[in-house]
Amino acid sequence: MFKLEDDKSYRMPAHFGGWIFDRDAQVTYHDVFGLAFLYTTDGDLLANYIPQGFELTKPQVMLQFQECRQVDWMAGSYYNLLTVAAPVRFKGQHDELEGAFALVVWENDTTPILTGNMMGVPKIYADIEDLHICEGTYRTRLSYEGNAFLRLEMTDPQPMDQQQVEALAGDVNSLGWRYIPKVGGPGADLSQPILFPMRSEPHSAWMGRGAVQWTPLTWEQNPTQHHIIKALAELPIIEMSPVLMTRGRMHLMEARGRVLQ
Amino acid sequence: MFKLEDDKSYRMPAHFGGWIFDRDAQVTYHDVFGLAFLYTTDGDLLANYIPQGFELTKPQVMLQFQECRQVDWMAGSYYNLLTVAAPVRFKGQHDELEGAFALVVWENDTTPILTGNMMGVPKIYADIEDLHICEGTYRTRLSYEGNAFLRLEMTDPQPMDQQQVEALAGDVNSLGWRYIPKVGGPGADLSQPILFPMRSEPHSAWMGRGAVQWTPLTWEQNPTQHHIIKALAELPIIEMSPVLMTRGRMHLMEARGRVLQ
Amino acid sequence: MFKLEDDKSYRMPAHFGGWIFDRDAQVTYHDVFGLAFLYTTDGDLLANYIPQGFELTKPQVMLQFQECRQVDWMAGSYYNLLTVAAPVRFKGQHDELEGAFALVVWENDTTPILTGNMMGVPKIYADIEDLHICEGTYRTRLSYEGNAFLRLEMTDPQPMDQQQVEALAGDVNSLGWRYIPKVGGPGADLSQPILFPMRSEPHSAWMGRGAVQWTPLTWEQNPTQHHIIKALAELPIIEMSPVLMTRGRMHLMEARGRVLQ
Amino acid sequence: MFKLEDDKSYRMPAHFGGWIFDRDAQVTYHDVFGLAFLYTTDGDLLANYIPQGFELTKPQVMLQFQECRQVDWMAGSYYNLLTVAAPVRFKGQHDELEGAFALVVWENDTTPILTGNMMGVPKIYADIEDLHICEGTYRTRLSYEGNAFLRLEMTDPQPMDQQQVEALAGDVNSLGWRYIPKVGGPGADLSQPILFPMRSEPHSAWMGRGAVQWTPLTWEQNPTQHHIIKALAELPIIEMSPVLMTRGRMHLMEARGRVLQ
Repeated sequence: MFKLEDDKSYRMPAHFGGWIFDRDAQVTYHDVFGLAFLYTTDGDLLANYIPQGFELTKPQVMLQFQECRQVDWMAGSYYNLLTVAAPVRFKGQHDELEGAFALVVWENDTTPILTGNMMGVPKIYADIEDLHICEGTYRTRLSYEGNAFLRLEMTDPQPMDQQQVEALAGDVNSLGWRYIPKVGGPGADLSQPILFPMRSEPHSAWMGRGAVQWTPLTWEQNPTQHHIIKALAELPIIEMSPVLMTRGRMHLMEARGRVLQ
Repeated sequence: MFKLEDDKSYRMPAHFGGWIFDRDAQVTYHDVFGLAFLYTTDGDLLANYIPQGFELTKPQVMLQFQECRQVDWMAGSYYNLLTVAAPVRFKGQHDELEGAFALVVWENDTTPILTGNMMGVPKIYADIEDLHICEGTYRTRLSYEGNAFLRLEMTDPQPMDQQQVEALAGDVNSLGWRYIPKVGGPGADLSQPILFPMRSEPHSAWMGRGAVQWTPLTWEQNPTQHHIIKALAELPIIEMSPVLMTRGRMHLMEARGRVLQ
Repeated sequence: MFKLEDDKSYRMPAHFGGWIFDRDAQVTYHDVFGLAFLYTTDGDLLANYIPQGFELTKPQVMLQFQECRQVDWMAGSYYNLLTVAAPVRFKGQHDELEGAFALVVWENDTTPILTGNMMGVPKIYADIEDLHICEGTYRTRLSYEGNAFLRLEMTDPQPMDQQQVEALAGDVNSLGWRYIPKVGGPGADLSQPILFPMRSEPHSAWMGRGAVQWTPLTWEQNPTQHHIIKALAELPIIEMSPVLMTRGRMHLMEARGRVLQ
Repeated sequence: MFKLEDDKSYRMPAHFGGWIFDRDAQVTYHDVFGLAFLYTTDGDLLANYIPQGFELTKPQVMLQFQECRQVDWMAGSYYNLLTVAAPVRFKGQHDELEGAFALVVWENDTTPILTGNMMGVPKIYADIEDLHICEGTYRTRLSYEGNAFLRLEMTDPQPMDQQQVEALAGDVNSLGWRYIPKVGGPGADLSQPILFPMRSEPHSAWMGRGAVQWTPLTWEQNPTQHHIIKALAELPIIEMSPVLMTRGRMHLMEARGRVLQ
C-alpha cells in the first residue's frame, strides 16, 4: 500500500513517489532568449480581468515571449512560452507587494504547463514558433490547431551597453490566482492569490520596435480558449513601448512561492 | 475588477469567466476506438502503488488505449490516450464501491490533460501514435521526445456477436487520487480519493491476442516520468488475457464525479 | 562498391539497395475517408496554371481531402492530403486521355511526399488537421507553421444508397507534370507530362453542402508556397457543387504510371 | 496556358511560376550550431554503399548534426539535420576531386528535404530533437514515429582558440548521387554523381568526447528506412575521434552545384 509522507513533495500521479522538499531549491534555465512587448491599453477594460485583492498600477499589457533552453529540471530540454501580464499591487491582510499578474501563460509543452498550473500559474497550450530571424526582424506566432491568434514582430534591435544590461538583472514578483475547482459541483476547493518568485540574469540585451497582432478565434476553432483570446484582442493597443530583447539565465524559486494573505 | 460567482464553474485562468454548473451535463465522445489489454501481475508489487483507502481486488494491470474522436467539448477535435489501471475496492466511512483505479493516464493533448488533472485523474503527456493497421495487426506506441516506452500490439481480431457487444455497455467507476501540492512547502493542500463516472456504449467489438512491451527510460530521457515507467515495467506480465477491441460512444459524467469519503 | 542493377527500382539514397520492379504491383490504402469539393471558377484564370499539352475541359477546381489510413506500404501508418486538381484533356502524339490534372497536392507526411514527387505528383508539405466532426459538421484546415491558408467545411451529409455508391467505384486518371531541375543551371533535366493511375472503391458515400475559404499568406509566412496559395485564392468561387463524402479503399497503380507522349 | 521559360528555375509544382537563375546566388544560414562525430569503421563494409565512380579515402563515418537557424530562403525559419557521410575521391572523365559523400541526410522539415532531393542530396525525414544541454552534456536523438534509431551525446567541450577556429572556415565538397527513377518501370531516368558546394564559417568551436548509439528498427517500425538504419548500425565503431562542435555561418552554393563527369 502506498502512503504519502508529510515532508515530501509529490506531483500527480503521487503514488509513484515524491522527493524531500528543499526550501532553498532553485531551478535554473541556463539559456533564455526573450522578447518583452509592452503597451498601454484601456485600464477599465483591463481591470475586468484582475481578481479581487489585486489592483492595476498602470493600464498596461505585457507580453513576454521566451525561448527556454537548457532547462535543468527537464534534463536540458526546452520549450517556448508567452506570458500575458499586467502590473498590479496586491494588498492583503498580511502581504502587500507589487508585481506582474499573469493573466494567462501559453506554453508549447505539457510538462511545465501541468507543474505550473498546480502552483497557480494559469498555463494553457499553444503551438509557439521558435523565432524566425531574417534581416534584422524577429517574428513568432502562437496558434492552436493551425489557427494563428497572436503574431509578434520586433525590428531594428539596438544593443544595450553592459551597464544597462546589468541593471536589468533582478527579482520578479510573478503573481497568479490558483483556482482548483470542486469535483462534481460549482465553485472552488482552492481559490487564492499566489506569489511565484523568479530571478532574471540577462547577459545581453537590445531595444527594438515592436508590433503585436491579435486575431480572435471562434468556438469551433478553439473551444476552450476563444473567450480568453477575444478578451485580450479587445484590449486596445493605445501605445507600444520599445521591445526589450534579452538573453541570459533565469531562476525559478518555486520553493519560495506562497499563498498571499 | 473580476469577481468569482459561487454557482459557476471555472478553469484556470478563471478571471476570463466561467459557466453555470449543470449537474446533469454529460460530455459525449461520439467515436471511440479502444483496445483493452489485461494481464495478471505480482499483486504485492502492484499494491505498492495503490493508495490507502483502496485495496486491490485482483493482481491485474489494465491498459486501455483509446482513439477519441468527435469529442463534443473540443468542438469535434480528437486525441489519443492510454490508461493504466488496476481493479480496486474503495472502503471509506461513507462510500464503498469497486472500480478501476487510474495509476496513470498518458494523453497526447494538453487540453484534456489539464482538465482531468484538476479533477484527480493523473494525466501526463506522451506522444501516442494512431493505430497502425496492417494485415490484421493493430499497433501503437507511446514515446516521449522520440524514445518509445510502451509498445502495444493486437493480432487476429475476431468479431463478437451483437448480443455480446450489447453486454459490454455500462457504467465505469473510474477512480483516482487528487493531489494538489502546497505552494512553497511539502505536502498537499488537497489529497483525496475521487470518483469520475463514465459510460461506455460500444456498437462493435472484437477479441484478439495481445502483446505489451515496456521499455524503461533514463532520467535524461524522461526526467519527470521515468520513475513511473520503471515501476510499471517492473510489474511482471504473468498472463495476458485476450485483448478486447471496441468501437462506439463514451460519455463522461464529470458533473457527477465526487470526492470519496 | 555499390552497383545499381537495371531490373531494380530504387529511391534516394539508392546505394542502400532496391527491389525487383513488379509491373502488377498495386498499393492498397485500406481505409480512406474523403471529402471532394468542386466549384466552377474563371476558366481563363485557371488555364494560366495548366501546362502545354493539357487543356481544360471545364472551368472547375476540385479539392479532394483524404484521410489515408491502413496504408500497406507504410506498414499500416497514415497521413492526410489535399489535392487541388482541374479537369483536363491531354492530347499528345501518341496519348489522348482525360483526367484530373494535379495543380498541387499538400500532404502532412514527408515519406509519401518524396515518393510522389519523384513520379511527377507535385506534393508539398502542410499541417492538415484530421476532421473535426461536431453536430453533423465536418471541418478541416491546412496550415503552414501555424498560419491557416485553407479551411474546408461540410454540413448536413445525406447518405447515398448502395447502388449510387457502387457507381462511384472506378479508375481515376491522375495527371501531373514532372519537373526535375538541372543541377547548377536554369531549366530542367526532365520536364514531362505523366499519368499516375488510381482506383477508388468506396463502400459508403454521402452528399452534403460545402464551404471553402482560402487565406493568402505573405512571403514571410510561407516563403516557398505563398505564390501557389495566392494563385489559388484568386480563382473566384463562382458556384459550389455539393460535397461528395466517401469512405472505402483506394489502390495506387504506380507501376502502371507512365510518361505521356 | 502555362509555358516554362528556359532561363528560369522552377520547383514542382512548376506551373505556378519560377525565377531567373542566378549563378552567383548563395543561400546563407546565419546561425548553425553543429556537432561533428567521426569514427573509423570497417572499410570493406562501408564501401558496399559507395557507388561506382567514388572511392573511399579513409574507412570513416562522419555524422554531422546541425541546428540550422536564421535560414534566409526560409524567411528566417529553422530545422535540424543529420548528415551521414564518408570521405571519398571522385575520379571521372573530366572531374577529379575529394569530398564527403552523403550516404543519407535526415532532416525534420519537408521543405529543405524536397529541394535537396531534386539536386541529388539523399534527404529523408526523421524527428530530430534540438540539443538537450545539461551539465556540460549535449544530447540529441533521431526517431521515426516515436522509435529512436540514433542517439548522439557529447561531453566535456573545451573551447578552441580563435586561430584554431579561423582555420576551420572553408569550402566543403558535398557529394551525392542523384537517382530519379523511371515512371512505370525499373531503373532510372537520371542516375549521376553530383557536387553540391558549401562554405562553412564558424565563429566559435569546441572539442569534446562523443558517443554514438544506433538502434536498428524493424520494417513495421520504419518501412522505408529500416534497411538504411540497419546498414549503418552494422558498421562497427572501431575508434571514435573527438567531437568538433561549432557555431557560425554556412553558405550553400547550389547554383554552383553540378553533375560530375
